[in-house]
Amino acid sequence: MGKINVGLVGFGNVGSGVIKILQDKKSFLRAKIGLDITVKKICDKDITSKRNVSIPRNLLTKDAKEILQDPQIDIVVELIGGIHPAKEYIIEALKNGKNVVTANKALLAQEGKELFAYAKDRNKSIYFEASVGAGIPIIKSLREGLVANNFFSVFGIVNGTSNFILSQMSNNNCTFSEALKEAKSKGFAEKDPTLDIEGIDSAHKLVLLTYLCFGRLVSLNEIFIEGISRISLFDVNYAKELGLEIKLLAIAKKVSDELEVRVHPTLIPRSHLLSSVCGVFNAINVSCDLAGNLLFYGPGAGQLSAASAVVSDLVDLTKGIRAGLFQSTLNIQVDKTIKKLRSINEIESRYYIRFMANDQPGVLAKISGILAKFGISIASVTQKEWHKAKVVPIVMIIHDAKERNLRSALDTINRLNVIKQDAVAIRIEEV
Amino acid sequence: MGKINVGLVGFGNVGSGVIKILQDKKSFLRAKIGLDITVKKICDKDITSKRNVSIPRNLLTKDAKEILQDPQIDIVVELIGGIHPAKEYIIEALKNGKNVVTANKALLAQEGKELFAYAKDRNKSIYFEASVGAGIPIIKSLREGLVANNFFSVFGIVNGTSNFILSQMSNNNCTFSEALKEAKSKGFAEKDPTLDIEGIDSAHKLVLLTYLCFGRLVSLNEIFIEGISRISLFDVNYAKELGLEIKLLAIAKKVSDELEVRVHPTLIPRSHLLSSVCGVFNAINVSCDLAGNLLFYGPGAGQLSAASAVVSDLVDLTKGIRAGLFQSTLNIQVDKTIKKLRSINEIESRYYIRFMANDQPGVLAKISGILAKFGISIASVTQKEWHKAKVVPIVMIIHDAKERNLRSALDTINRLNVIKQDAVAIRIEEV
Repeated sequence: MGKINVGLVGFGNVGSGVIKILQDKKSFLRAKIGLDITVKKICDKDITSKRNVSIPRNLLTKDAKEILQDPQIDIVVELIGGIHPAKEYIIEALKNGKNVVTANKALLAQEGKELFAYAKDRNKSIYFEASVGAGIPIIKSLREGLVANNFFSVFGIVNGTSNFILSQMSNNNCTFSEALKEAKSKGFAEKDPTLDIEGIDSAHKLVLLTYLCFGRLVSLNEIFIEGISRISLFDVNYAKELGLEIKLLAIAKKVSDELEVRVHPTLIPRSHLLSSVCGVFNAINVSCDLAGNLLFYGPGAGQLSAASAVVSDLVDLTKGIRAGLFQSTLNIQVDKTIKKLRSINEIESRYYIRFMANDQPGVLAKISGILAKFGISIASVTQKEWHKAKVVPIVMIIHDAKERNLRSALDTINRLNVIKQDAVAIRIEEV
Repeated sequence: MGKINVGLVGFGNVGSGVIKILQDKKSFLRAKIGLDITVKKICDKDITSKRNVSIPRNLLTKDAKEILQDPQIDIVVELIGGIHPAKEYIIEALKNGKNVVTANKALLAQEGKELFAYAKDRNKSIYFEASVGAGIPIIKSLREGLVANNFFSVFGIVNGTSNFILSQMSNNNCTFSEALKEAKSKGFAEKDPTLDIEGIDSAHKLVLLTYLCFGRLVSLNEIFIEGISRISLFDVNYAKELGLEIKLLAIAKKVSDELEVRVHPTLIPRSHLLSSVCGVFNAINVSCDLAGNLLFYGPGAGQLSAASAVVSDLVDLTKGIRAGLFQSTLNIQVDKTIKKLRSINEIESRYYIRFMANDQPGVLAKISGILAKFGISIASVTQKEWHKAKVVPIVMIIHDAKERNLRSALDTINRLNVIKQDAVAIRIEEV
């Protein structure tokens, strides 16, 4: 019975989950793959805190070199997160002939071009199943299960924190800040929740999904990113009355020969499965030429869920290493029908728009006149009676309009005297 | 550039889809896997009908031996369906050192034990991704993506025909026979729809899902199977008012040290994603110890969708063959915590029950008295005013009851003079 030696860098939450699985399921995994996955060394800057697994003290080190430079270690698992020194560790591991497993979406989103190329040059692989959707096997599915497909779009809910907040607002009628507070108290949001609620974490994951589906590693600044922190309960409830649910979607979509890549709050019809994805769950919708329209759903985070994905990567690499199969991943192909990325100004979308206007004659005429001037056509408009108020909300759904035109129209409307605050505009996705 | 030779047995709908993909995407696949998948021979009893692909005439044969006995052929794709001669073809292919790809769920459900053992003895693999959920990579996900997981349950909608019929009934208020007629006219149901509407096709797929999750190849007669042909529009609508949708579910579920394996119409709360799966779509819910609760959704049938799965199997085998990696699949492990299958009499479930009773005093007292005698506790009861009718429906939801007890109680109630037709009982699944 052979064995594959693994070195783990980063003995935190997910790291100790990985160790726990490899310990608890040693014989189970051995029976499945025909050899042992053995952890030879674990590196962390903190080697004294208690974890929920017990390991021999001599497995622990504070010095990553003991892993990166150990010729007996076949696979390095990087779970420290952040850009530095994670990047340098991965580079050194690859240089020293090791394959790499990581859950580090921020790193891959920012430095993926260099890292993947570096690995390829050395006939080594970087596996990253845990970086999107935790235990949902979305990366394997896109890469292997749908290997023969060309993709039209990939979009979904890839950040559990923001989905929890939006679900709370929609289902329990609470404000953004109340929902955020609850997310924090439940451990679903970090002390500084910026990465999650401002869409940056979603954008990191979108970079990877776009890479897998379209073969392009876009950089973060090529993605339009808008978070959920300005979503009001009023709009959540109003949209609901219109049969729409609000979700923070990460979207990569081919439109003729251009690719749209964007993260923003999105209204979707209640008939779409994504609208029913609540709480910290993730779901990714994939549309492709052969297998059609698919959806993958599951918990988007969690110690064992992410560790499940890391271990599946380890098993795949182990099989590949045993067989002498390098590079063991399938090559990702660039979709050559895509000529360029489409800037957010050029995208076309339906919109939910809310104006806050003085309750006086002629307001609607003014607004709709300006919209018409910019070629924007109104699908529906609602102005409810607003008890004794002087300022009333006017909610419109507009037909497909170019973002640039809409922005110009809204700028003009926002400057009207009768308008009392900047218009709220939320994209509606025809999913 | 090396190549892998494939022989295709069965040049029907899915078969020609496979050929089309391998033709249209030859260079795409070559770039991904680094070698060519070449179709060396195609066998069908009909080699004259036109297909939506054009192939050189000399590729076609009526004699399967030209494929099964050709030493240059590495992989045999079996797409003729049915038990014989598909079984004999697969045996001969394996005997002659070939790997096999099949979409034949009926065959694997019936003869899987022999076929998988035969393949294993020869260090060969049988791949069958297209046999459940068409292009949804559910088999790869269960086997590889969730490799480290132990499973609690796998259940879902795995038959598009019956889901289309139930969706039509629920969404368009039509009767079973109207919906079946429409399914036939749309090509979603066969002339003889028995396999689909009586749950047999779902049971075939359940055998495979159970095998993948629990390592047991149950035989068809160990599965409780109940179809949808007796579902009435009345119950669909009534259940809907109670917040429940009716779906034909295939369920494999561990309950302590027993395994329940069953196919039947099931009521599920509208809050569960499965309740929103409409039309010919499939969705499979997987619950496991590490990755949690996952759902895989997509079209359950279709030429290119199934062919997409066949080609992904071909690619996996191709990679394995090139690497000299046999057996290239992961071993499936028997879940040893399962002591036996639980018979349908022993399962516990909530139920929707409808009685048709004379509209006279004391009926409810009689019914509930009998239920109580069998230890069955009522959660809710509704008897609506029934305009001028002498026979009225009484609908109950009952708390968890053992099937055996419920059946005995219903038998007793059905014999009452005041009861005008046999009670309808539909299981409610706490998903």
